[in-house]
Amino acid sequence: MADPNGPQPDPFEQSPERDLMGRIGRLRTKRGILETPYMFPVVNPLVQPIPPRELKERFGFKAIMVNAHLLKKNFGNEVVEKGVHRFLGFDGIIATDSGAYQILVYGSIDSAPDEIIRFQESIGSDIGVILDIPTPYGAKREEAERGVLETHRRAEEAFRIISGDGMLWVGPIQGGTHFDLLSSSAMRISSLPFHILALGSPTQILKQYRYDLLSRMIATVRSIIPPSKPLHLFGAGHPAMFSLAVALGCDLFDSASYALFAREGRYMTEGGTMRLKDLRHFPCSCSVCSKYEPSEVLKCDGRFIERFLAEHNLNACMEELRRIKQAISDGALWELLGQRARSHPSLFRAFMGLRSYSDLLEKYSPSTKRGGIFYFDRFDLVRPEIQRYWRRLLERYSIPEEVEELVVYSGSDPAKRLGDEEIRKIRFFKLVNPYGFVPWELLETFPLFQTEGPGPADEIPEEALSAFKELLKRNKRVRISSLRLSERALQGLRSICEELGLSLEINVDLERFGSADGRATKYI
Amino acid sequence: MADPNGPQPDPFEQSPERDLMGRIGRLRTKRGILETPYMFPVVNPLVQPIPPRELKERFGFKAIMVNAHLLKKNFGNEVVEKGVHRFLGFDGIIATDSGAYQILVYGSIDSAPDEIIRFQESIGSDIGVILDIPTPYGAKREEAERGVLETHRRAEEAFRIISGDGMLWVGPIQGGTHFDLLSSSAMRISSLPFHILALGSPTQILKQYRYDLLSRMIATVRSIIPPSKPLHLFGAGHPAMFSLAVALGCDLFDSASYALFAREGRYMTEGGTMRLKDLRHFPCSCSVCSKYEPSEVLKCDGRFIERFLAEHNLNACMEELRRIKQAISDGALWELLGQRARSHPSLFRAFMGLRSYSDLLEKYSPSTKRGGIFYFDRFDLVRPEIQRYWRRLLERYSIPEEVEELVVYSGSDPAKRLGDEEIRKIRFFKLVNPYGFVPWELLETFPLFQTEGPGPADEIPEEALSAFKELLKRNKRVRISSLRLSERALQGLRSICEELGLSLEINVDLERFGSADGRATKYI
Repeated sequence: MADPNGPQPDPFEQSPERDLMGRIGRLRTKRGILETPYMFPVVNPLVQPIPPRELKERFGFKAIMVNAHLLKKNFGNEVVEKGVHRFLGFDGIIATDSGAYQILVYGSIDSAPDEIIRFQESIGSDIGVILDIPTPYGAKREEAERGVLETHRRAEEAFRIISGDGMLWVGPIQGGTHFDLLSSSAMRISSLPFHILALGSPTQILKQYRYDLLSRMIATVRSIIPPSKPLHLFGAGHPAMFSLAVALGCDLFDSASYALFAREGRYMTEGGTMRLKDLRHFPCSCSVCSKYEPSEVLKCDGRFIERFLAEHNLNACMEELRRIKQAISDGALWELLGQRARSHPSLFRAFMGLRSYSDLLEKYSPSTKRGGIFYFDRFDLVRPEIQRYWRRLLERYSIPEEVEELVVYSGSDPAKRLGDEEIRKIRFFKLVNPYGFVPWELLETFPLFQTEGPGPADEIPEEALSAFKELLKRNKRVRISSLRLSERALQGLRSICEELGLSLEINVDLERFGSADGRATKYI
Repeated sequence: MADPNGPQPDPFEQSPERDLMGRIGRLRTKRGILETPYMFPVVNPLVQPIPPRELKERFGFKAIMVNAHLLKKNFGNEVVEKGVHRFLGFDGIIATDSGAYQILVYGSIDSAPDEIIRFQESIGSDIGVILDIPTPYGAKREEAERGVLETHRRAEEAFRIISGDGMLWVGPIQGGTHFDLLSSSAMRISSLPFHILALGSPTQILKQYRYDLLSRMIATVRSIIPPSKPLHLFGAGHPAMFSLAVALGCDLFDSASYALFAREGRYMTEGGTMRLKDLRHFPCSCSVCSKYEPSEVLKCDGRFIERFLAEHNLNACMEELRRIKQAISDGALWELLGQRARSHPSLFRAFMGLRSYSDLLEKYSPSTKRGGIFYFDRFDLVRPEIQRYWRRLLERYSIPEEVEELVVYSGSDPAKRLGDEEIRKIRFFKLVNPYGFVPWELLETFPLFQTEGPGPADEIPEEALSAFKELLKRNKRVRISSLRLSERALQGLRSICEELGLSLEINVDLERFGSADGRATKYI
């Protein structure tokens, strides 16, 4: 069959709340609706520090993930008979993973791709994953390509097996850092009727803090797959990287890190990972951290410590996802990225690297916002609101035929004493950083009016000067007059005028514009 | 009497845990020890959303502050008879404020300075404040000066009244943004035997987000008063500004903001203030936020909402103070400041302004650290570790007499094929940003070896070039050879050599140094 759900509506619905490439969405499953972005805590059926029931009742996780391969291998029929929900004692949404990660770790598993699909259906899973072939980090091209092709073959084959009982299916995209393979895999897999698409194999990349590579992988995939499809990032579950992944378009995550880190005495924070033994104060107010001091926890036995850390790590993941959702809702996801970027140089490198995806970010970002935007430094020039202003200025703004003079100024608006006839021949541009010289008519539009920066800055960004130069180039020749510009601000203006051969008069007679504190100097 | 405690030891003890001008300290009071940095939640005896007992038992606040003037005016003898601890039902440390803030708000109060001192003693307060005259923000110099002089007169007078029963006394420093007055007030007040010094009147400055002015006020005071004295910042209690204030040397805070904000529907976060009605998700895991969704809270009655917000706001303050203490302990307070700075342009302006206090920050910061340091961008050049490296390089490092050539390189260490005789005449400097050209001998010392940045950067900071130029100037003339430097890195080196008239040979014969992939080009 081609589409297991037939002509049913797409189970993923984007809400109007979006920012950058992140969005708040609703995923409809057999067992109810899941709000995204969301992280499935992965439950190990053999060793689990926190019973699944508590994950829902105490921690508020409405959905979990469990490895179908491990269930099949260790419990087989028992799970089929009871159904996975009763077996795990979890009445929320259960997603099952296929065991592909075990292939990455152990080389192979002893179940066939069709068996794993049928098993996931037979235990009543709500969301299933086909058995793909992960691309190991550092894999040679040939090896990667073989895995990708086999994954594609299995993906197509899957739709001959899937019975279509309302379960959602995840299509894994492979290729790793072989970006041509990754692109073709994104194209191939997204052409099949999967409900959810997933980016595979980032675990090693995450372990090595290569957030720059991860960004490129996500952006590559997201630029190909349709926005209507939710994107799952396999095996990612650390609060420090959620905002970056969501900003690039990831909707779902799954991870056992909360438990694995706990076993190693590691405490997650939104800024990184700390060792419990190095903590003197808990930088957290969650249900467990607010009960103890680190020294008290350290005195307890290993099992208590492991459980304590697993619980805290889950709370830290959940809190950061809520913070991200609120930031999306406020249109402040860029600001959150900027803060997180300052918690580790690897995240900062990825943040700086977002300039490569500025077109993509701009394409998906909403064009107006409820609140204002903050501008801190040149790294913020990449943000879509600023990029979009420059692009639209060049696309939509032109200087009318009758205009002979551009008055470029800073400070309060001039032009009080001009007659109607005279004013038709003049256009005013105010210096508003980081945007540069902005047509007076646009000053009260978004985002110009809503941008707050750290103070009067007369250092005009390169990009702003380029946009202004481009605007002047595209229009008929005008003469430029400046008013109240600092020497620093004038530098850029001078070089533009010199390059384009335009006349520039500095500190034009202020009397003309309703103020008498300046005098004209002919410059060019 | 001169010192109410006679020859007792200073009640404040700094721990070895310090970073920037922040430190973890222990303040010994009649009722036990208070770990600093600490914020006293201010309890209003007339309307208090959370009973004082709960502040200790549920929220972990070991000390609170209450206004002695309000107690005296409204309850008088009852408080004296019961004692303030029994009256409030709080068996922890109670600090009493004098009512000076009411002067700021209402113009005057109806108690005399000596009455207020005696009242605080008679109710058994643990920490008292004399009745000073706050300097309103925007006060003219004459008004400010009158208040400062009157405060000094009262401070001296106080020590004739104080009975010295083990209670700690706070000496308020006034002057506001009249920095000469503030300095003289800091000098005068710190010469008296107060146990704690306090910086008065920042409330208006905080309300107007003038963190830049606040920084200057704190730095001015901290540069004058001895490190052995704890510094209290009156009326400050927002998580977003604690890290900045602590980094500049504040140890104590007090505030009723948690309750006042709650009354106005405002929700504090470490990055700013949000309106409850704008929240869709709580960006927090505290005891109250983890129980509800914002929509559920908004449906409740006004009293519930106010109490909810007051509780959350207290948790948010407490959490941030714990985070700051952990950052001090980790030597990562600078990184925390950098993150907080990106939550509001006003904080960012204050963060950028820290360059004015780099000498002060360097003086107090420890010279080695347990962990490494992160370098993100040019704003981090202010951090003490980097400033100190440049200063010490110039103070302690010199190029020996026999040296004739400096080899300035990037990448792996050269010099494999040089004989002993030859090597004595050469010194090697490696390009390690942000430090610039670093003597090879220092590469594995702190902080060079422990600095992690966002990646290979060949843009050498101005400050690094200046330091290298200064080093060359102070030493006898050598010739410079470069090895594997990018064109960008060479730019700075060229201009230094040109300015000092030193010979520069680019890409010296690599064969000489054990590699064969380059050739010499005579430059100057």
